[in-house]
Amino acid sequence: MRTIISVDPNGKPLAQPHMHTRWHPDIPPVATVNVGEAFKVECMDFSGNSISNDDCADDVLDYCWDQDHHLSGPIRIEGAQAGDLLHVEIMDVQPFPERPWGFSMIEPGAGPLDKNHTRVAKAIWDFEGAITSSRHIKGVSFQGRPHCGEIGTAPSAALLESWTDREKALNHRFRSHGAICANEPSKRGAYVGQELPSDLAQKIRLHGARTTPARENGGNIDSGTLTSGASIYLPIYVDGANLSVGDLHFSIGDGEPTCAIEMAGIMTIKCHIIAAGMDTLGFTAPVVIPSVVDHFYQARLAFHGLSVSDQGMQHLSNPMTGYIQAASAAMKYLQRFGYSHEQAYILMACAPIECRLLATPNIPTANVSVALPLGIFNADLRPSSTNPVVHDYGSVAYLSEEREKLHNTRHPGPPSPFCLEA
Amino acid sequence: MRTIISVDPNGKPLAQPHMHTRWHPDIPPVATVNVGEAFKVECMDFSGNSISNDDCADDVLDYCWDQDHHLSGPIRIEGAQAGDLLHVEIMDVQPFPERPWGFSMIEPGAGPLDKNHTRVAKAIWDFEGAITSSRHIKGVSFQGRPHCGEIGTAPSAALLESWTDREKALNHRFRSHGAICANEPSKRGAYVGQELPSDLAQKIRLHGARTTPARENGGNIDSGTLTSGASIYLPIYVDGANLSVGDLHFSIGDGEPTCAIEMAGIMTIKCHIIAAGMDTLGFTAPVVIPSVVDHFYQARLAFHGLSVSDQGMQHLSNPMTGYIQAASAAMKYLQRFGYSHEQAYILMACAPIECRLLATPNIPTANVSVALPLGIFNADLRPSSTNPVVHDYGSVAYLSEEREKLHNTRHPGPPSPFCLEA
Amino acid sequence: MRTIISVDPNGKPLAQPHMHTRWHPDIPPVATVNVGEAFKVECMDFSGNSISNDDCADDVLDYCWDQDHHLSGPIRIEGAQAGDLLHVEIMDVQPFPERPWGFSMIEPGAGPLDKNHTRVAKAIWDFEGAITSSRHIKGVSFQGRPHCGEIGTAPSAALLESWTDREKALNHRFRSHGAICANEPSKRGAYVGQELPSDLAQKIRLHGARTTPARENGGNIDSGTLTSGASIYLPIYVDGANLSVGDLHFSIGDGEPTCAIEMAGIMTIKCHIIAAGMDTLGFTAPVVIPSVVDHFYQARLAFHGLSVSDQGMQHLSNPMTGYIQAASAAMKYLQRFGYSHEQAYILMACAPIECRLLATPNIPTANVSVALPLGIFNADLRPSSTNPVVHDYGSVAYLSEEREKLHNTRHPGPPSPFCLEA
Amino acid sequence: MRTIISVDPNGKPLAQPHMHTRWHPDIPPVATVNVGEAFKVECMDFSGNSISNDDCADDVLDYCWDQDHHLSGPIRIEGAQAGDLLHVEIMDVQPFPERPWGFSMIEPGAGPLDKNHTRVAKAIWDFEGAITSSRHIKGVSFQGRPHCGEIGTAPSAALLESWTDREKALNHRFRSHGAICANEPSKRGAYVGQELPSDLAQKIRLHGARTTPARENGGNIDSGTLTSGASIYLPIYVDGANLSVGDLHFSIGDGEPTCAIEMAGIMTIKCHIIAAGMDTLGFTAPVVIPSVVDHFYQARLAFHGLSVSDQGMQHLSNPMTGYIQAASAAMKYLQRFGYSHEQAYILMACAPIECRLLATPNIPTANVSVALPLGIFNADLRPSSTNPVVHDYGSVAYLSEEREKLHNTRHPGPPSPFCLEA
Repeated sequence: MRTIISVDPNGKPLAQPHMHTRWHPDIPPVATVNVGEAFKVECMDFSGNSISNDDCADDVLDYCWDQDHHLSGPIRIEGAQAGDLLHVEIMDVQPFPERPWGFSMIEPGAGPLDKNHTRVAKAIWDFEGAITSSRHIKGVSFQGRPHCGEIGTAPSAALLESWTDREKALNHRFRSHGAICANEPSKRGAYVGQELPSDLAQKIRLHGARTTPARENGGNIDSGTLTSGASIYLPIYVDGANLSVGDLHFSIGDGEPTCAIEMAGIMTIKCHIIAAGMDTLGFTAPVVIPSVVDHFYQARLAFHGLSVSDQGMQHLSNPMTGYIQAASAAMKYLQRFGYSHEQAYILMACAPIECRLLATPNIPTANVSVALPLGIFNADLRPSSTNPVVHDYGSVAYLSEEREKLHNTRHPGPPSPFCLEA
Repeated sequence: MRTIISVDPNGKPLAQPHMHTRWHPDIPPVATVNVGEAFKVECMDFSGNSISNDDCADDVLDYCWDQDHHLSGPIRIEGAQAGDLLHVEIMDVQPFPERPWGFSMIEPGAGPLDKNHTRVAKAIWDFEGAITSSRHIKGVSFQGRPHCGEIGTAPSAALLESWTDREKALNHRFRSHGAICANEPSKRGAYVGQELPSDLAQKIRLHGARTTPARENGGNIDSGTLTSGASIYLPIYVDGANLSVGDLHFSIGDGEPTCAIEMAGIMTIKCHIIAAGMDTLGFTAPVVIPSVVDHFYQARLAFHGLSVSDQGMQHLSNPMTGYIQAASAAMKYLQRFGYSHEQAYILMACAPIECRLLATPNIPTANVSVALPLGIFNADLRPSSTNPVVHDYGSVAYLSEEREKLHNTRHPGPPSPFCLEA
Repeated sequence: MRTIISVDPNGKPLAQPHMHTRWHPDIPPVATVNVGEAFKVECMDFSGNSISNDDCADDVLDYCWDQDHHLSGPIRIEGAQAGDLLHVEIMDVQPFPERPWGFSMIEPGAGPLDKNHTRVAKAIWDFEGAITSSRHIKGVSFQGRPHCGEIGTAPSAALLESWTDREKALNHRFRSHGAICANEPSKRGAYVGQELPSDLAQKIRLHGARTTPARENGGNIDSGTLTSGASIYLPIYVDGANLSVGDLHFSIGDGEPTCAIEMAGIMTIKCHIIAAGMDTLGFTAPVVIPSVVDHFYQARLAFHGLSVSDQGMQHLSNPMTGYIQAASAAMKYLQRFGYSHEQAYILMACAPIECRLLATPNIPTANVSVALPLGIFNADLRPSSTNPVVHDYGSVAYLSEEREKLHNTRHPGPPSPFCLEA
Repeated sequence: MRTIISVDPNGKPLAQPHMHTRWHPDIPPVATVNVGEAFKVECMDFSGNSISNDDCADDVLDYCWDQDHHLSGPIRIEGAQAGDLLHVEIMDVQPFPERPWGFSMIEPGAGPLDKNHTRVAKAIWDFEGAITSSRHIKGVSFQGRPHCGEIGTAPSAALLESWTDREKALNHRFRSHGAICANEPSKRGAYVGQELPSDLAQKIRLHGARTTPARENGGNIDSGTLTSGASIYLPIYVDGANLSVGDLHFSIGDGEPTCAIEMAGIMTIKCHIIAAGMDTLGFTAPVVIPSVVDHFYQARLAFHGLSVSDQGMQHLSNPMTGYIQAASAAMKYLQRFGYSHEQAYILMACAPIECRLLATPNIPTANVSVALPLGIFNADLRPSSTNPVVHDYGSVAYLSEEREKLHNTRHPGPPSPFCLEA
């Protein structure tokens, strides 16, 4: 089997020719594959090796988020034409055998669960075969379901333009709040590894779409279902499809309020084409058939959330508020057993948590549940008259004393887009 | 085993003493049970037998939504005290053997998927043992997971007041839009079956909280997990707990954009108490341990939705928009195979559909997936070069010709709260 | 939906016209159904109401095993022809609502796990909705998966004759051992409820095949998979198919070394025909598509058995010995926690136990595993340095003192066929 | 993480010091690990690289079965004492990345399904990530569940002696039949890789137990549950435990009538000790807690087998006969769709097939089911009026013409032990 893209997971991304950090139709493919051919693609972690396996979170503070995600590609699929559907079989996702670890981290302000008392933090997860545990969050271990967080085809020029337009319009609508609601194209962090004519490189850096969200081409789907055995169907907007992949995770929790277990690794992929499928099947966004092999921690404890804020304000049937309430309730429950706020927060993003949107029309609440898998905890966390029993679960990695001091005194950032009131 | 509440599922609700349609601390319990005692409770369908097993949807138009939900209770649990947690074991939920059918319906304006081209519609589902199918939506059959849509304890007076205040405040915030964002207390449809002193009855009718949403006491949770074998933990706000149940469903789809398969039926329940559990465990909203026996249609086709409206407007990471996009994509896919818009819509609410909130921080999209269970369809719906193949799947029940004409000419209702722009 | 066969589960079987206890081609159908028609069939428990809901096992000793199984039928399927396949959809199996209990029992000598120290015993299981527990085996409760133990079509005259011949030949081969290896036709206990000409009745009673084993027509399949949502395909040997059903269980363990949880109840069934399917598909024995809804107690503790007897004798790769070893190990493990031998024995037959035949060619052992579902026990039974912890789990029902004395002094029965040495 | 045993999967086993092919207490450990330490062990395929990735089965005929299984070990667990229980966490099993293939093969006479018309055959399985397919059996692909077929602790001298005694006694009992019922110790193929004093080496070669069966120390368990996430509890008979592992499979079918998908690979393991656990917990044979992550092909087609031979002879409730009947029915069913006898045979051993022993006491039949996972086949294999549809599924690898001729004319081997009549 061919490895069509190789990377050095411990190297610097700027020196690596098969990577890019923006979506743009004009990034030339770095490899070509045939329909039905299984092949391997290596990927750096999403941050391009910016986070280290140590016990200090200063690198979290130093990370430039404009650089994410470091994607491998584009890969041209021989014969693919705009208007076809690309059927990608994900046959395997694995960490590099010689780099059996991943990380999660909390950057205050980055997700909906963030509160002003959250500290910059990091947890390193060790992979022992298919099982992971963290020296920074004791009392927990579970089986991973390594998957691909970001996967997409290249947008057409028209599609790219529509993305930029609508996202700029969103920022414009909320400009008075000062929050960043969508990351607009930005030269800072924009990167195409291969050597390109300077005007082309400049065009991509200036206009390439950010990789933060999922969009009509796939993108940052962040679904744990994209593990070995899954199929994803993606619309094709440019001839050749120009598939890129990256942002591999060892495990993820639904809702993923901050980083999943981020890793560098190797995907095995096979591509098929449904000719003219965009028209015949009508797909304009990703469609997935999950693997038959599911990580099914059967015993679950599901917290239900209301569309009511912490301050008791009723929101208009809002599943994001419901998620925040349910996940916060789960976190507070964990804290009663001895986990810290940051440990509980990271577990929400890393552990195999199930989040369901249960009912939408029951105004003024959208029903959301967030379910902890009971089997991942050493202790028995079921509600009972003898619980909670408190244990010591160690500590995540925080900032160095020096940086912590500086961090606390720096000017507050912009408000979170999740705090904007509807 | 005692049947502590009996109802006539084919009768009129007003003549039935064990029912009520509002949450209020002063509704006296109609029955008392002991901790650890299994007992049965009979329930009318949520509408109080307002919808008939026929092929005309005029009764949908005639239904007064202020009457829902017709709950059975309250049930006093001997020894329960405010501050305890009530652990309710759901041991069974079944339709009445002699009433083996349920219904779903579409009331335009009632849910987030509604578009102005949706017609008033109804589908009757026949229960053949554990399997259901509908003469109004051919080509589909599946196993039910009968469950309890609404379950809750009585609120304290203070909690009730806080509900009313915050929901009125919501309506106030959006009053200029004309939309009803929360159903406020209303004498219309308010009902307590038992004979009460008139001032008490009046107080309940005037101030009792509507049963539409889920709240801190449980309420309209609408989760298919509340089937036999599940446990739900509810805070207790008044001595005796005063549990009420109702809104039974034969099956539900996550997201439930309109009615699930509504039915009258019989629950078997056992209650336990965790003394002072609200304090020791900190639950302030429902927590559920789902049954080990899950309706697990393994093969799924998951549509992913973006936080982008049909008109291409980018919303601020909005899982409701994501749900609407994903569910609409699933519906449009079904329509390519021959299902009508209304059939597809009803399937979204009735079939064992899985809706996951996958990732929240990827601004400006909240990732939501809506997964069709492939095994419930007679036809093979997998994406392929030979699909879609169109079949005739019959028709849902619509309005009579006469009513349809009147309906189309009546004044448009208030705008949907789901259309209010953030 | 029609109930085509009604029974009185608390009555005497001899007075009930729709029952029979033998397989014979000449038993006239008692009802006729159409292809595609859902219908209900009521069934007595297998013993014809011979076992009572009390705390004394004397009725076990009194039971005449020649009477089993009390089947409901035969049911003629309109249009079915010999050579077709009958596709039976099992849409539901439920206990009678007014008879929410079942029983299991141990008749020494009746199964492969029996040892001379097993006492005559009985356990009553109470059904609280879908959940069962027993006052005779404390500390255990679980969800049932009500199913049909016996289901079959009528044999042709030729098939019946071949059964009798081969089973007599087996008894003949082992006649010197004194063991009964197959129950031959016997007037004792033979029974057809409907009124028949006396010569026909006599013919059936003299020659009708016993219902003990599974055979080419279906028969005593005793698989927990035959629950709601399952399909079974049965060869048709006589025109009309002449389907009979019975031996309903609330729950069963794979291997079922003694009675499962036996109950009277109601089946919902729908029949289809695959014309000439015996020839086109080649089925000559039952084939089953299990329900999508499985009782899946995920956490299991699997004991592995060798083909070595208790006395240390090596058997020729024998899965029966492997089963005996694995199940005995599981029973001894349970006894370390405080369950009695008889309680553990009954659990092997009643609880949702999984028994797999893992590998056959590894001479001289056939690998068999017997897995306990950990989730059905109140206590934590996982192997650990703090286990076993002994609890008091009450007692099964045994013989009255008087009968126990008599029983112990009666002549020993014939040797078990499971003790015959290969 | 340490790799404590390295092998060359493409080399010759005799040159590799960490391997052995017999169980004996005196084989010195080749590595030592600590309790709680995760470590890696590399393993050759069971045959010691005797089977090639080509299209000719001559190497099957040439294979000397006395050499199996090539195990890696023994591994000493620091602090383990005889009488303790060894808790082995299987954290991962993977093929060597650079050797992404495995094989299955049929040696006539080797398993219970063999008929005289079975030909020597081989199938190569390619691993594309977690998915496997075979150029020798088209139309099938499935996800593997890589696992460890053989795992065990060293026997004590007394245990070893009892094995030899009881297996010789078995052969003695059946000596008049000419069949080999148990493989006795044999110098031929006996092998210890490390350099040992010649008298010790000789002792091991002369008296070491064969690795064919599972025994009280673990051994050839051949259970697909021994995949990542599983725990196995093994009795410890010698200080240090002296664990050996090997016989890795990419996938296996329950019943495994011939070779599973055999592969060379790498295990990740962690060991724990339950002190004095043999006494406190009473385990005298392996006990397994399967992984929470199961390969669960939900849609299954289960063939049920009777204890009746092909020739119509009734056996005494015999699950081996039941297995043979059920598996043969499944194979014949596959042949109706175009698979050859040898293809169907190999699928029985390689595909994720479920074999359950359902009921034991229903004399004279022990109920056994063998279930095909419908989802692994490209074609729809469900029974219907339009099936079977015949396709061309290619061909397994057979003997070269030359060898086929010689093979057919060689003297017939000894009778199969599975043909010996009880």
